[in-house]
Amino acid sequence: MIILGVDPGTIQLGYGIVADEDGTLAAVAYGAVKCRGEMPERLCRLYDELGKVITQYKPQALAIETPFVGENARSAIAIGKAQAVAILAAAQRGLPVFEYPPATVKHHVADYGASSKEQMQMMVKLLLEMPELPQPFDAADALAIAICHAREIKLQEIKAGAR
Amino acid sequence: MIILGVDPGTIQLGYGIVADEDGTLAAVAYGAVKCRGEMPERLCRLYDELGKVITQYKPQALAIETPFVGENARSAIAIGKAQAVAILAAAQRGLPVFEYPPATVKHHVADYGASSKEQMQMMVKLLLEMPELPQPFDAADALAIAICHAREIKLQEIKAGAR
Repeated sequence: MIILGVDPGTIQLGYGIVADEDGTLAAVAYGAVKCRGEMPERLCRLYDELGKVITQYKPQALAIETPFVGENARSAIAIGKAQAVAILAAAQRGLPVFEYPPATVKHHVADYGASSKEQMQMMVKLLLEMPELPQPFDAADALAIAICHAREIKLQEIKAGAR
Repeated sequence: MIILGVDPGTIQLGYGIVADEDGTLAAVAYGAVKCRGEMPERLCRLYDELGKVITQYKPQALAIETPFVGENARSAIAIGKAQAVAILAAAQRGLPVFEYPPATVKHHVADYGASSKEQMQMMVKLLLEMPELPQPFDAADALAIAICHAREIKLQEIKAGAR
């Protein structure tokens, strides 16, 4: 299975493509889309670039981080906007969409809900056996979200098998 | 000028088309897009339906309400998602986008920032000389947002002329 992970943001959006072959995970591609200008321009760019990524790597699922509803509602709304555009781009191409809160992603990848960005980046490198640290942080986070989805699916398969 | 007003929401999204002919405003069309199912399905439907409205009525601008960052961050994020999809659908077709907070819309339409939904609906009917009250509330709000934009443009023209 090929998974597209997305760390949403309207200034920079991270994406990561992870291939899951019977539980063996590998990074296929990753990067970040940088956005400038006003919100309409940013959203159009995110939509176009994610469309290109989906067309090129043909992922079978989108795994995306849900905005953390914390002290900063304004930034949560901006993340929600980027999330909406990513969900739209994926759903229009028939991909099922899975949302994960940040703590779930950290738990699955680093076994610890409060890991730092550096720790997550290191764990992603180890789990995907990458030759170097994935850069920037948003791309590393996107790969982490894809890993989270692969592990969540695995967990559900085990649970279903145990019934 | 033809203005598309949008009252964003992921359960129901109101839209209103207002024609502004030298300051005389008229309702061209209005309605609400009802959404069901999961978020991806809702966002796809909003995008498709707004695309149809834009194609049919050829508005020259999108006026949209900004989410009110109040006590309920979760609902503000949902509004932000609907807003993102509307902004995208408009921007992809070359429409400039104008955002207005709820208080500004109420101020321009009812001269009072804390007007009720019923008062706004009544004012929209009066200002657009409509034969009946615009229904549902979300559509009335969308027409109000379009009126707000027409008045804001007028105000800026007056200010520019006075310089």
